[in-house]
Amino acid sequence: MSPDDVSFSEQDQRFMRRALDLAHSAMYRTSPNPRVGCVLVRDGQVLGEGATLAAGQDHAEVQAVKQAWERGHEVRGATAYVTLEPCAHHGRTPPCADLLATQGVARVVAALVDPNPLVAGQGLQRLRDAGIQVDVGLFADEAREINLGFISRMVRGTPWVRLKVAASLDGVTALPNGTSQWITSEAARADGHHWRARACAVLTGLGTVRADDPQLNVRAVQTPRQPIRIVVDSRLECPATVRLLQSADSPLWIVHALPPEQAAPRLAALRSAATASLDLQDIALPVDPDKPGKTDLRALMQVLGQRGINELHCEAGEKLNGSLLRAGVVDELLMYLAPQLLGEGAGLAALGPYQQVNEGLALRWHDVQRIGADLRILARFPPSFSP
Amino acid sequence: MSPDDVSFSEQDQRFMRRALDLAHSAMYRTSPNPRVGCVLVRDGQVLGEGATLAAGQDHAEVQAVKQAWERGHEVRGATAYVTLEPCAHHGRTPPCADLLATQGVARVVAALVDPNPLVAGQGLQRLRDAGIQVDVGLFADEAREINLGFISRMVRGTPWVRLKVAASLDGVTALPNGTSQWITSEAARADGHHWRARACAVLTGLGTVRADDPQLNVRAVQTPRQPIRIVVDSRLECPATVRLLQSADSPLWIVHALPPEQAAPRLAALRSAATASLDLQDIALPVDPDKPGKTDLRALMQVLGQRGINELHCEAGEKLNGSLLRAGVVDELLMYLAPQLLGEGAGLAALGPYQQVNEGLALRWHDVQRIGADLRILARFPPSFSP
Repeated sequence: MSPDDVSFSEQDQRFMRRALDLAHSAMYRTSPNPRVGCVLVRDGQVLGEGATLAAGQDHAEVQAVKQAWERGHEVRGATAYVTLEPCAHHGRTPPCADLLATQGVARVVAALVDPNPLVAGQGLQRLRDAGIQVDVGLFADEAREINLGFISRMVRGTPWVRLKVAASLDGVTALPNGTSQWITSEAARADGHHWRARACAVLTGLGTVRADDPQLNVRAVQTPRQPIRIVVDSRLECPATVRLLQSADSPLWIVHALPPEQAAPRLAALRSAATASLDLQDIALPVDPDKPGKTDLRALMQVLGQRGINELHCEAGEKLNGSLLRAGVVDELLMYLAPQLLGEGAGLAALGPYQQVNEGLALRWHDVQRIGADLRILARFPPSFSP
Repeated sequence: MSPDDVSFSEQDQRFMRRALDLAHSAMYRTSPNPRVGCVLVRDGQVLGEGATLAAGQDHAEVQAVKQAWERGHEVRGATAYVTLEPCAHHGRTPPCADLLATQGVARVVAALVDPNPLVAGQGLQRLRDAGIQVDVGLFADEAREINLGFISRMVRGTPWVRLKVAASLDGVTALPNGTSQWITSEAARADGHHWRARACAVLTGLGTVRADDPQLNVRAVQTPRQPIRIVVDSRLECPATVRLLQSADSPLWIVHALPPEQAAPRLAALRSAATASLDLQDIALPVDPDKPGKTDLRALMQVLGQRGINELHCEAGEKLNGSLLRAGVVDELLMYLAPQLLGEGAGLAALGPYQQVNEGLALRWHDVQRIGADLRILARFPPSFSP
């Protein structure tokens, strides 16, 4: 809890916690919208509550008001607890700030100001202009964590990039013969699927596609939508036989650095091998100026930001991991450490060789906990922005 | 707390905690004896307390009785809280069980039965025979942790072997150019000296001696005695210029696998280069049957057990670490993980290549915590014995 939080009443804290829980419950479905929770309370009684639905459908505030109505409550005079500033612009839905004002809400407690430049305080201003008491900042840290990706995209124009690795305690991610199944426990792999599910897209590289023929989908947890699958394949060498082409559960984006005339026949081959309903797109990017033949990964993140990717979940091999890290586009390392020593094998990321220890990539611990038999470490790189 | 602990009264628990604290306070000084704490209590009042002194001096019970006397208390009718069964044999000091009995103690609460075959319940039996109420098992797990090494030596005849490593999060212990100073923070290095200090001996290999010219002594924490220094140098190739030969603060044992006629001149050269008062000994061992030219590390542990080494602290390089692990003599990994990625470099231990993940060396987590900027992981190998 930050010092700001304790200036709110116990009741405020209780209802905002509930709103955060509601926001959490929307984790897998709202993208590219943020996950928001809303609780409407009058005289200590919850009138209605809601969480953001899928994009284009109701925001949390609308859900909460509708639920109050269904229960026969007016919301006049109520306090609205929302995990993010109510929107003030017409997107695919009308502005929530207007809804709360017209319904006669007396007070709005918001965890966070919306980083969306289209909102950015306007929602709160509109509420204040309507004579509503507005208090901001309760559990702001928790609220930020829920929408790291959305905030990143709004502030930087690029996704929050999470690199997931599974390694033995001595840093081995695959044996010399390529075997990596399974270094970590079933519980850790299921936890990993939770992180896939909350991401808008899962990214890997051609090396992993060739070695593991992965599906890149969410299987171990229930989710209403599958994340977009992205393969970095600079020269479009993806075999037409891979499993990724056989599922249409989510779009497949292939990232390359070929000129159109070279890309066209290869993409055509992939399209003709793909299952009929697959939404297969290519993202043609400039070649990395520092690495001939390789895709410019910084440019990729700009494109993904433009395409509405909030959180990008990367599960790749040593080489692409190294390229992502050296490009400086990774925000967070999600590492599962198995209580095992494997000695020789592939490492986490191809970096170095460095001459001095301080040339290494510095992180800061964010969270460490045991997941099943393994240790899960969440560590972050020095922020290129403050969410 | 184990279920056994709650069957003791709150007062019992409080005074045994104090006894454990006293045992902890003796951590750096008692070897090869166990660290023991004792609190004498009557009617809720502490009469006297004590902790084991250096070997040959008072045991904890004697210290506690003496302190009670100094304060003008008789101990008749008191309860003695001891972290280990009082000894029943004449070692360098008379049996503590007899002392407690003759002083008229009414009850003895012991955390643990002494694993020493010379004691092993005889102390408790002698107390019971004297009509004293004896209760055993309060905070047994905590008491075992304090004397892991002593218990190991008593039960197996070999030390408790701890392997300390400092690595980046991706498992790099030294850069390709050999640099390892400093991957971990000053706080972690100071913590490492605590573990050195509690060990009877610190072991390294010729590779580390050549690369780092280490002192292997305790500097970052206060200690009444320096651990014995041990260098595994199978062919006695240690340069005569190393710093280890210039300090006489503790004995230096050089472990090799040379026949006497080859060893003699090399040892003579080291002795003549050493500072005058250095206690320099060699331990000549058979060659490892599996590794020509290398010392048999299992045989080494037998010798170290015979020489009274309870806890052995190993700080070596990738190769010797691998040899120790492959020999199956390591009980515990003490790993400092720095929040950093270093990419290329030396690993924790030369192991493998394995064909299957399940061929790796399995550990179980014992303790994970942040130490300064780093993460400290204590993990244990499946026990070859239960302490």
